[in-house]
Amino acid sequence: VKVSDLGELGLIERITAGLGPAVAGSGDDAAVVQSPGDSLLFTTDVMVESVDFDRAYSSGADVGWKAIAINASDIAAMGGAPSHAVVGLSLPSDTRVDFVDDMVAGMSAAARRWSLTVAGGDISRAGEMAVAVAMIGVPVAERPVYRSGARPGDAIGVTGSLGGAAGGLAVLRQGLDVTEPGLEELARRHLRPVARVAEAALLAGVPVSAMIDVSDGLAIDLWHLMDASKTGCEVDPLSIPVDPALAATAGTLGLDPLRTAMLGGEDFELLFTLDPGQVGAVRALLADVGTDVTVIGAVTSTERLIGDVALEELKEAGWDHLRTR
Amino acid sequence: VKVSDLGELGLIERITAGLGPAVAGSGDDAAVVQSPGDSLLFTTDVMVESVDFDRAYSSGADVGWKAIAINASDIAAMGGAPSHAVVGLSLPSDTRVDFVDDMVAGMSAAARRWSLTVAGGDISRAGEMAVAVAMIGVPVAERPVYRSGARPGDAIGVTGSLGGAAGGLAVLRQGLDVTEPGLEELARRHLRPVARVAEAALLAGVPVSAMIDVSDGLAIDLWHLMDASKTGCEVDPLSIPVDPALAATAGTLGLDPLRTAMLGGEDFELLFTLDPGQVGAVRALLADVGTDVTVIGAVTSTERLIGDVALEELKEAGWDHLRTR
Repeated sequence: VKVSDLGELGLIERITAGLGPAVAGSGDDAAVVQSPGDSLLFTTDVMVESVDFDRAYSSGADVGWKAIAINASDIAAMGGAPSHAVVGLSLPSDTRVDFVDDMVAGMSAAARRWSLTVAGGDISRAGEMAVAVAMIGVPVAERPVYRSGARPGDAIGVTGSLGGAAGGLAVLRQGLDVTEPGLEELARRHLRPVARVAEAALLAGVPVSAMIDVSDGLAIDLWHLMDASKTGCEVDPLSIPVDPALAATAGTLGLDPLRTAMLGGEDFELLFTLDPGQVGAVRALLADVGTDVTVIGAVTSTERLIGDVALEELKEAGWDHLRTR
Repeated sequence: VKVSDLGELGLIERITAGLGPAVAGSGDDAAVVQSPGDSLLFTTDVMVESVDFDRAYSSGADVGWKAIAINASDIAAMGGAPSHAVVGLSLPSDTRVDFVDDMVAGMSAAARRWSLTVAGGDISRAGEMAVAVAMIGVPVAERPVYRSGARPGDAIGVTGSLGGAAGGLAVLRQGLDVTEPGLEELARRHLRPVARVAEAALLAGVPVSAMIDVSDGLAIDLWHLMDASKTGCEVDPLSIPVDPALAATAGTLGLDPLRTAMLGGEDFELLFTLDPGQVGAVRALLADVGTDVTVIGAVTSTERLIGDVALEELKEAGWDHLRTR
């Protein structure tokens, strides 16, 4: 069954049912929701087929999950907790209804995972599939955490590990057997990213001085953080926490693990700066939610360097949403 | 110059500058905005090229204006005032930067018109152009106005006139000379729709019992209102306020003016129900902002009829976002 057989109203009813209890204004012109606070975080992220996902290896549930997760990660990166989302679906007429059902199930699961509500949406016919999610949330501490607060002398920390999502993309593109140990974990990092919402709440409470999520790759996102803060940095490349599954399988994948950890995007780890005296406390806090913190360098007032390579140079090799590579 | 020449960061800087004074969190992972109230209205509307607009006759400024206007209209239809928007742009790599500049100028103009702030956004490369806007707002009266509040005995009112936008689309598709009087007004109704934000605030204050904006056409949107309210209706087709420019040029365009007023979408007028005793007061209120109100019928507890035709039958001839016609 295709979405064009069901028609817009039929599909909306089906999606609304799939999302669970309806909010006020569901099926109306706008959803009516309780404001989560006096100060709001408001963001949007669009996923376009064949640029951001590929139905050859992404299920509907993967696409739906990821569309919610990447927006939740943006809210988390501001030291926020997500509360509500709206979803704009662009669907080719011949899209199978079961793909959409799956997508809704993936969105639902991600919404439950991060305690947010999908409050409404819009459907348009389109030549290519796209999912545009917009999300609101609320800063969990007194203030949001901006990219611009890093000060020379701060330590630079990162949660979890890097390069796994890019490794997973390589696994999927190369059509490797994703049931193999290691490869399965990598594929999952690409398909089912995890927004660091709990970690962000803890980091915002410290507070850390600046934060960003690693969506475009460490080199680019570190550059954003330093550029917004008007600071330099010195990062020790050997301290970068390369995803262990990537390190173990990089040979098979034909990838340089460190380079992949520096340039690969979509790990959705949190990259932050903080008073070096607070590193121990932060490690302990995040250990409580099972997440490692690695200090990869320090904020300076001069150049931006990873080892002896200029960050600018690495950044140029990274992901640009408007250029084909 | 194409957007791929400028790159993502270059384009974001350019767009941010074009939108005027930046909000907190501009260039960050999420915008930080003051919540407009305890109860929020949250909506999204996606415009996809060649389904919802055509660059053959829509300028960038038209597309940008309309993307904001249609979302503002959704907020208005709930009896709300829009406050903030985020914009997800899907752009083919070869999109000309001056088209994007124009689009931003159109968004800016619409944002000023309805006193809202474009707070942030996202850009993705895509095969086809699309603009996904999400908007928050606040109910201006004590409660939002839902579609579900119509009661048998209520009068059915509509602001302004209907069919003009569909007439304008015909003008543009037929490549007629849009400098001709009448045709120019029609084209403008398609290209530069006006969200009835001021009118909505007045109607919400009465309050009217139910409201919707006429985006999919009178037949479909009236059906939505009656379906949500679980009521019937009797509409007098001769009372439907056909756009005067459409009435004057329908022969040239090969359109039946009444049928176009009933089935044509995107007029973004407000369709509402109210106690018949309040019609006079509402007419006077809206006259103050220069907007006509027409009573087109009454809410009943039985069938849904326009003249002696079932609304259901007319609705099937209207616009469905997932079917090609």
